[in-house]
Formats: sequence, structure tokens, C-alpha cells
Amino acid sequence: MARQSNGVSAISRVVQILDTFSFEAPFLSLSEISERAGIPMSSAHRIVSELVEHGLLERMPDRSYRVGNRLWEMGSRTPGALGLREIALPYLHAIQSRVRQHTQLLVRSGLDILVIERLSSRDAVVNASIVGGRTPMQLSSSGIVFLATTEDDLVPALLERGLAPLTPTSLRTEAELRAAVERCRRDGYAVSSGWIFEESRGVAVPVRGSQEVTVGALSVVIPNDGSPVDDLVRLLRVAADGISDALLRSYLPPGHPHARPGGVYRQLVSSSQASMEYFEHLLEGHSSGA
Amino acid sequence: MARQSNGVSAISRVVQILDTFSFEAPFLSLSEISERAGIPMSSAHRIVSELVEHGLLERMPDRSYRVGNRLWEMGSRTPGALGLREIALPYLHAIQSRVRQHTQLLVRSGLDILVIERLSSRDAVVNASIVGGRTPMQLSSSGIVFLATTEDDLVPALLERGLAPLTPTSLRTEAELRAAVERCRRDGYAVSSGWIFEESRGVAVPVRGSQEVTVGALSVVIPNDGSPVDDLVRLLRVAADGISDALLRSYLPPGHPHARPGGVYRQLVSSSQASMEYFEHLLEGHSSGA
Repeated sequence: MARQSNGVSAISRVVQILDTFSFEAPFLSLSEISERAGIPMSSAHRIVSELVEHGLLERMPDRSYRVGNRLWEMGSRTPGALGLREIALPYLHAIQSRVRQHTQLLVRSGLDILVIERLSSRDAVVNASIVGGRTPMQLSSSGIVFLATTEDDLVPALLERGLAPLTPTSLRTEAELRAAVERCRRDGYAVSSGWIFEESRGVAVPVRGSQEVTVGALSVVIPNDGSPVDDLVRLLRVAADGISDALLRSYLPPGHPHARPGGVYRQLVSSSQASMEYFEHLLEGHSSGA
Repeated sequence: MARQSNGVSAISRVVQILDTFSFEAPFLSLSEISERAGIPMSSAHRIVSELVEHGLLERMPDRSYRVGNRLWEMGSRTPGALGLREIALPYLHAIQSRVRQHTQLLVRSGLDILVIERLSSRDAVVNASIVGGRTPMQLSSSGIVFLATTEDDLVPALLERGLAPLTPTSLRTEAELRAAVERCRRDGYAVSSGWIFEESRGVAVPVRGSQEVTVGALSVVIPNDGSPVDDLVRLLRVAADGISDALLRSYLPPGHPHARPGGVYRQLVSSSQASMEYFEHLLEGHSSGA
């Protein structure tokens, strides 16, 4: 890419500008964008105008800007997030209809976990999860699941960033963190009792992809009342196994006896049986791309 | 932005490259990206490498690329798509649990409608909708809803693009299209009987935002069996009114007696009552941004 005189590429500037928008600030003025991105007004104006032209930002009647639906549309082609979510959604609903608290699907992103989907009910316990939002690994049962099933030892990096406990029961020391990871390795699930809110407890299990790699975590957030979690863990495991199976079958070549119907769409779409058969048919005679 | 020698800006090239990925081809090799985007291999290589650096593309073990979770994460800050979806989701679930077919939320994007959310069940009727996917307006009941409630006359543009009928009952002429739009204006809902698949029928109502502007369409896709839709339309209307009300209340200033709890998060998050009260509290003492 053409580099600007200060050595920052155009793509870096676009990322800096898109990153100024957050859940706290979904609408920003041009001067707020310029200030938050640390980009002079004139450059910010040029880039923002071009992003608006492409629909990646949208200009509101009050002259503020928001992230454009076009960016959401482009992002919807991620097998890692929306694809996994499509495949997992029926299982999330099945859990949610039984548990009636928060049911969540998460992936790892660096030292954080990223919430891909969250189903809630009005009367569910307090929970800071936002779809698209991040939580530090050491504060979440799903984070412990990733720590326990990832080959790399991420604990030193987490310690370096700081454990930043939020409640009296949040993990505070390397020993506590390593003990939680070990417990998860042994039991196959993780429980976070009051680590973010004293009233709330997370219970998470891994979702495995090919070669047993953990591609996601499935969790519920329930009241932190000390009640046993055995039934819940069983429910989560059955769902996680179902998702793993659907996921593996999504990547089988078409025509394989265990492949899910839907051709290459299988990796991104999970609709009714009749719809998936239509998608599979749609591709007959097409070259399959990659 | 710095323009390349051929006058195409860096941002345009990024958009061209991200747009090569589709539901048909979620994984592409570098040469496929270069070919589809019409960008020489050397430039494509440079841009793709930088997109990978920022996580907007991800490189797979087989050296193909896919859209990165980071792009999905950035796109998750769209009030117009994911925000609307968060607010609408409980209503979609309520409809889905009654109708047990496909329940959909859609927005307009140019002359197409864009699927924001689709809930399905295994035994539902055939339906080509993909979350993040587009359908030409004239082929969909939701498209007719937007045509009937938008001030601009979009019919000439649709005719110029071509109506491209798919079935014997798809709209074929200007007169048929205008009649469908008029019917929707009169009745307040639209029905598409077999326009995409002869077996399937769409029923859609508008979701209104402030100043009665149509910000979305709520639809179900059901068997095309000629059964009356009155009960269904009533169900959709109650849900659409509920979404409109929640949407309007999301934009009321904090402290307003009808404001939903959750501070500025209201526009993007719809979690449990306790969670929204937490979000509202979180912002006390923060300046509110825009």
C-alpha cells in the first residue's frame, strides 16, 4: 500500500478510524473521530468521506457518523464468527429454552474472548456480555476453557498484562489462575463464580473442531447461588458435541455420506433441510472456488 | 487517501479485495483474490498481507484466506444492523416459537434487501435467505414493504436493472410491481406467493423508526398453500410495534421516564434487565461521547 509521509499506511488509518467506534460511542462527530484516532482533521475528513462513499461508515442526519451496514455485511462472510454462530444457533436455542438465563458462544481473540452470540431473557442474572464485545480471558469461564485447551502457555502474557480482578473472588495470582486451568483440564469444563459480578456465575465447555482444536466455547451465565452444575454441564456437553459434529460435517467434501447438505454454503449457513438441499443444488455445475 | 497511479485509492482496493469473498467462496487463494478483484498479484499480495496483519483477513493452514473475525468484530458496532437485530431478537423468537417456519429481520440496501437475522427450524419450507445475504426488492415481500413505505419511487430503477423473475408467479411487469406496492400501502403488509420458490410464501410488515421512517421489515417464510394470513399479520404487527417502541425508547436521553435502561448501550445491546441497569451505571461519570 502507498505509505503516508509519516510511514502509516492507508489501511492502518482506516483501521484506526473504524476502531474509534465502540459500544460506548456508536455515533461520533468528525472531530471526535480525528481526536480518538490521532489523525489530523484534514486527513480524517478525506478518509471518512471515502469510507462513507463505500458505505463502511454512514452519515447521520445530525452530521455524526456510525459504522455502516456495509461493513457488517462484509463481516458476515466470516466462517470463524458468523459461520460458527449459524451452525451453533439451534443448539444455543435448545440450551436457552431449558436454562432461561444467558446462553453464549465465544471465540478466542488474542488474550481476550469475543462474544459471537448471546441469548438472554428479561429476568436473567446480570451479565456484561455484548455481541461483538471482548472479555479478558482470566475473568471468564470461557477464557479458562481456551487456556486449558490451547497448546501455548498464555499465562505469562496474561500476568504481564495484569489480572485486573473485579470482585473478591476474581483470580488474583498466578497460582490461582494455573489452578483454575488445571481444574478445567481435569474436569473438561470451567466455572467462574462471581469473577465479574458477585451475583453471577459462568459455566463453560469447549467446542472442538478438526484435530480436537478448540474453536469455540459454549457457556451459560447463571445465578451465583452455589447450586450444583452437573446437569448443566451435561446439557452443555451434549450441545458442544452436536456443534462439533455439525462443524466437522460442514467441511466434508460434497457427496461424502456424512456431509451436511448445502454444498459450500454449509460452512456459513444453517437453514432448514429443504433450504440446504436447495443451496447444494444451486452449486451443481458451478466450479467450487477454493 | 493516497491514490495509486491508476487513480484507484487504497480504500477502493481494500473494498474490492474484501468483496471477493462471498457465501459461495468463503475461502480463496491469493491468485483467486487477485483474479476476482482485478488487481495484479504483486499489489494483491501487499494488500492481503497488510489485511492479515490487522486481522481483517485470516490465513488458513492450506494457505487460503478467509474474512477475519476482526472484521466481524468491527461490523458488530453497527446500530443499523446488529443494533436493530439485538433489539428485535426477543420479538423474532416470540414469532418463531409460534410459527415454527423462518422468521426474518431485513433492512434495505440500495435496490436490495439485506438479511440481518433469520431463525429457522429443521422442517421449515425452502428459503434462500442467508444472514448477510441480499435479495432483489421485487422478489421479496420485505422488498415490497420498503417500496411501499419509501418516499422515492424506486420502481424505475428496478425496471432498469430488470425484474428477473424466477417462477411463473414472480412479478414480471411494471403494472404488476406497482399493483403489489399499492396493495401493501393499502393493507399495511405484503405477501409474496411463490416469487422465489413455488413452495414458499413471504409475509412482511414494516418496522418503523422515528418520524415513521421504515427502518426494517419483519417477515415470515411459510408454505405457499393459500391458507389465510390474517392471524400471522396480526402477530407480525404486534412484534413490529414492540420493536418500534423499543427502538424509539433506545434513543431517548438517559433519565427520560420512557427511556430503556442501559445508557448509550441501549442502541446496541438488549440483554436482561439487570444487565442493562449495569450498563447504565457503567457510564455514570463518563462523558457520553456524541
